[in-house]
Amino acid sequence: IGADWIYLMLLGFIMAVLSFTVDIFVDLFTEAHSWIYDLADSHVLLQYLAWVTYSLFLMCFAAGFANMVSIQATGSGIPETKTSLRGVMLQEYFTFRTLVSKVISLTCVLGSELPVGKEGPFVHVGSVCAALLCRFMSLFSGIYKNKARNEEMLTVGCAVGISCCFAAPMGGALFSLEVTSMFFVARNYWRGFLSATFGAFIFRLLPVWNRQEETLTALYATKYRLDFPFDLYELPIFAAMGIVCGFGGAFFVYLYGKISLFVKKQKAKNSFLMKNCFLYSALVSVLISTLTFPPGFGQFMGGRLTKKDSLISFFDNRTWSNHGIVADFDNDDHLAAWKHPQANIFIILSVFIIMKFWMSALSITLPIPCGSFVPIFVIGAAFGRLVGEGLATLFPDGFNVDGHIYHIVPGAYAVIGAAALAAGVTHTISTGVIMMELTGQINYTLPILISVILANMVSQSLQPSIYDTAIRIKKLPYLPMLSWGHREKYNIYVEDFMKRDVRYITLNSTYRDIIKILRSGNLKTLPLVKSAESMLLLGSVERVQLLGLLTQRMQHLREDNASTMPVRYKVRFQIEEWEEQQLVEQVTFSSCKIDPAPFQLVEHTSLHKTHTMFSVLNLDYAYVTSIGRLVGAVSLKELREAIEGCTPADGVRLRPVLSTFRDRGVQGTMTETIALHQLLEHQISR
Amino acid sequence: IGADWIYLMLLGFIMAVLSFTVDIFVDLFTEAHSWIYDLADSHVLLQYLAWVTYSLFLMCFAAGFANMVSIQATGSGIPETKTSLRGVMLQEYFTFRTLVSKVISLTCVLGSELPVGKEGPFVHVGSVCAALLCRFMSLFSGIYKNKARNEEMLTVGCAVGISCCFAAPMGGALFSLEVTSMFFVARNYWRGFLSATFGAFIFRLLPVWNRQEETLTALYATKYRLDFPFDLYELPIFAAMGIVCGFGGAFFVYLYGKISLFVKKQKAKNSFLMKNCFLYSALVSVLISTLTFPPGFGQFMGGRLTKKDSLISFFDNRTWSNHGIVADFDNDDHLAAWKHPQANIFIILSVFIIMKFWMSALSITLPIPCGSFVPIFVIGAAFGRLVGEGLATLFPDGFNVDGHIYHIVPGAYAVIGAAALAAGVTHTISTGVIMMELTGQINYTLPILISVILANMVSQSLQPSIYDTAIRIKKLPYLPMLSWGHREKYNIYVEDFMKRDVRYITLNSTYRDIIKILRSGNLKTLPLVKSAESMLLLGSVERVQLLGLLTQRMQHLREDNASTMPVRYKVRFQIEEWEEQQLVEQVTFSSCKIDPAPFQLVEHTSLHKTHTMFSVLNLDYAYVTSIGRLVGAVSLKELREAIEGCTPADGVRLRPVLSTFRDRGVQGTMTETIALHQLLEHQISR
Repeated sequence: IGADWIYLMLLGFIMAVLSFTVDIFVDLFTEAHSWIYDLADSHVLLQYLAWVTYSLFLMCFAAGFANMVSIQATGSGIPETKTSLRGVMLQEYFTFRTLVSKVISLTCVLGSELPVGKEGPFVHVGSVCAALLCRFMSLFSGIYKNKARNEEMLTVGCAVGISCCFAAPMGGALFSLEVTSMFFVARNYWRGFLSATFGAFIFRLLPVWNRQEETLTALYATKYRLDFPFDLYELPIFAAMGIVCGFGGAFFVYLYGKISLFVKKQKAKNSFLMKNCFLYSALVSVLISTLTFPPGFGQFMGGRLTKKDSLISFFDNRTWSNHGIVADFDNDDHLAAWKHPQANIFIILSVFIIMKFWMSALSITLPIPCGSFVPIFVIGAAFGRLVGEGLATLFPDGFNVDGHIYHIVPGAYAVIGAAALAAGVTHTISTGVIMMELTGQINYTLPILISVILANMVSQSLQPSIYDTAIRIKKLPYLPMLSWGHREKYNIYVEDFMKRDVRYITLNSTYRDIIKILRSGNLKTLPLVKSAESMLLLGSVERVQLLGLLTQRMQHLREDNASTMPVRYKVRFQIEEWEEQQLVEQVTFSSCKIDPAPFQLVEHTSLHKTHTMFSVLNLDYAYVTSIGRLVGAVSLKELREAIEGCTPADGVRLRPVLSTFRDRGVQGTMTETIALHQLLEHQISR
Repeated sequence: IGADWIYLMLLGFIMAVLSFTVDIFVDLFTEAHSWIYDLADSHVLLQYLAWVTYSLFLMCFAAGFANMVSIQATGSGIPETKTSLRGVMLQEYFTFRTLVSKVISLTCVLGSELPVGKEGPFVHVGSVCAALLCRFMSLFSGIYKNKARNEEMLTVGCAVGISCCFAAPMGGALFSLEVTSMFFVARNYWRGFLSATFGAFIFRLLPVWNRQEETLTALYATKYRLDFPFDLYELPIFAAMGIVCGFGGAFFVYLYGKISLFVKKQKAKNSFLMKNCFLYSALVSVLISTLTFPPGFGQFMGGRLTKKDSLISFFDNRTWSNHGIVADFDNDDHLAAWKHPQANIFIILSVFIIMKFWMSALSITLPIPCGSFVPIFVIGAAFGRLVGEGLATLFPDGFNVDGHIYHIVPGAYAVIGAAALAAGVTHTISTGVIMMELTGQINYTLPILISVILANMVSQSLQPSIYDTAIRIKKLPYLPMLSWGHREKYNIYVEDFMKRDVRYITLNSTYRDIIKILRSGNLKTLPLVKSAESMLLLGSVERVQLLGLLTQRMQHLREDNASTMPVRYKVRFQIEEWEEQQLVEQVTFSSCKIDPAPFQLVEHTSLHKTHTMFSVLNLDYAYVTSIGRLVGAVSLKELREAIEGCTPADGVRLRPVLSTFRDRGVQGTMTETIALHQLLEHQISR
């Protein structure tokens, strides 16, 4: 680990303190909300006003703050982090400004009790902290100046972000693995674990010091029985829940996508409603807080409970109901919210699930920092509780195994439902692990993993994950994954999708040529070839270097101006004319930095190999050479198009046109070798 | 996931059934041992004979079977699997013969109650099963013929192997990640989880069907209290245990290395003792079973308990002792073994730890299938129990927190000790996760992770892991990891360590040249260049193809022989002479398969980049080209030497000679770009 451990522990510590502080402020905001609400209990209208305006105020402040200080702070930030981890570093997303904006407006959003979560923003915050800390550490050690290394640290930031929200170091480390999506550098696993463990440790230690808790326990500690966690007959039910949650997750993503696109379209139309970020946020806030108003419709959906309270009540290890009527438990405020004189528990839970479902999907499209993890957990847990309570009512006597009687544990169903629905939305397995760490029980490993895997299978076949959907909608420069088991990807070569019309500079290029090339596009680097005839690739030159050369030349000319220029050129337009002429001179590259080893591929590199190399080496572009001659270039854009051509976009499998003729060739290595005469033709044609 | 899921589930199912069958047979063997031992209780000598000869017989059979059927079955197999995952596929280790040999002799070894484990061999068995299943599936689907894909499946095999031993799907998936050691393909994570979950599910389902257990629970289910798992004051003790276990783990690896080298040296000397694998195994077996003989020395070290029984007793949630005297518990055979009239529990546990320590280190050097995981767990758990019981004696009143009194849970110390010692030996974090899944409690996540990380830190700085030690001793073709934070690795280029003297064939090569080249080495592929002057790399040709060309030519010559050959050449040696002359002809490559895209690097690729590409693309060799010209070649061997030159071997940091002069260059990209005139010189010199 070397000297990294100071960095990693510092990162964990900072994130834990941040997370704890946010939690404290959110608690304060929530308490104040409750207090104001209770204060105004003289009149329902007054109460309603207090209930709604409080949320409204916080929301408007959050939306305003986020949009004014740093627009990059809006949204969950996981799509952007994912894109940056893939290679296209979105620098503006990792600034101190974004950090401040995100943390402060997140606190307000959470305080306003909108159904959004904290973990998505915290994954982003973790990455920002990791990036900033790298910059800070580079003052002391040169190693932190290495770009590739700092990008690796973003992964650690992800792990710590999750870990400090849920006190789940293992889940965090695994989530960071799943977010990188293609190749995971194994040493990051180490770093992630160390930092996440320390972060979770500090995050749980702070409440103990603060006298809120007695000792380090899980965040939503449960106490289900250990000796007989579940019966075999319950497994098919768990599996069915996984499948249902898979469909639910896919539908959630679909709904989110539709709403996002609708909002985007309205924005493009420049309608008044969308022009103003306050107005949209305010409207949604009023709508949601009106619906959850406890004396109103809120009484049918546990309106007074915060997300945390509802999770605690869902994970409760007691069975709530007796034939649909919630039993009375002493000294428990949370359960009272689910008790209603007219409606039984099944109706209330169903209403809760349906309402929260669209509210959450709507809320996460707002231009504020918001995550979807916790609301999804809440919905999933409600669904699980519904199933569990239903079964407890159907089988009130429980199971009789060898003379022992074991009752059904509805709380466990809530845990499994939460994990499965989250898995369906995010397409990750780590949600299951996070759930185990969150509840402090691992007895349900197998049911959780089974339902999580089933939920993933179902939802992956229906919809992309919520992050990929956001990436598509936001049009981020992301390299999609190669889908599994497509044999075509071994059959498509670089030459099928490379850009053949490459702009290049030669050793004989004049200054004028360079100006022309620089004007014609904005590539960051340009290939340097020996001559236009031979096309031998010598290296690549950065745009900045070329601009430098030009400026130098101009300056040189102007200096010479006074002394050597003929008198008749003194008029201004004549100077330019003279300069124009001077630009015909050949460039001398001797003062120019040339990268002698730009990344090169050969024409017959398969799409699969190309994708692997782009993923691993975080490439933005590569030159395609044939026996040293430059024949084309591939950038992320071409690669993405090629992959999307071979990946089923909407169930229909598209094939790149060029790859078809090769199918006649037999399998495997046969197609990868070609006869020599083709090579010789290349040689002759040179 | 596509069609993979059939494969993955099949793999999980097969491994679960295998693991369960092995367990059943081992139980049978152990019971038979007990039965024979109890039968002979008329006389101590008779009892001793029964105790020793039974183990001896099983051991000899195991050693003989393993060595006769397949010598590859000996050892744990993890080092070989690790090497194969790194890229150098050791084909002979993944045959059906090896599988049969390994499973059968492993069962006997475990039945003989030698302190060795089942999981190491099972990782190997899992990989073998994965490889064989790939071959089987290739009958139905062509995709299973892809070599790179099948190598990825080995990772899944690892995960399933661990998962089916410990019913630990998460631990298994993480272990497979840690074993691959450099780059982890994220889709393997998915595959590993699916297969491991199904395997663990079946593995735990079988005992339920077999009426051994009531429902699916953890393998060593514990019932520690959930409301107050541990006090803050216990954390420093857990951390200290982690550090001690780190030292212990490093010492274990050291001991193992010394014994292995000693045995190897004796074998080389060809002494009688070592010549015969039976004799060595038999001697060790007699020694160990003599020491554990219950009425003899075994009474001071719980000699009658099997590994499983001792683990169960260590993880017990009761406190054993009252001031050093083991309390009486009804209906518990296991605890009785730790009760001794003369010696108190601390002495017995200490003796147990010391004896088992060297016994385990000795046993895993035997030429039999054996793993080190479980014996290490046992030793670590004993150490933890010792600490826990000691603390319970020191603080008999426990902790008083807010009026509640919580006693110390020595069983939790055993869990932490086991995880930390295993982490120290194997240098993995997943041991902690495995331990949580094994005991079915996640409440101790933070203490476990903290002590595991500390144990790793200590032991990694002292010794390589037990697998790397085995790889070194067995001299397997393994690519070492780049150590962290060495800036030199960015400063060493391919040209510093590549092989410049490359054998190549040209378009003008004669048959004679080819014979000469083929005789001069045994490279699998040879580069084809345009001519010896230009050295333009056209592609690479496999050795087999060249041999084919030669044979063809020879045959052609011989066929022409009868008709066209002049009469005077009829004598045999004259025929050869004539053939020799004919070989001067130029080769026509038209019928020969040429790979037009061998992997190429440029001279200025850094060691770091080269290492990454070799790791990710599983390369065996790569050609180094400069503007299309072949200038060198790099194989795994050269790369390994270069890395070992820059990695501290034994604390002393060695530096490759060539990299020093570059240190004067400033940082980063400065050194990576060179001025053009150098490039031009290249061009002129061509």
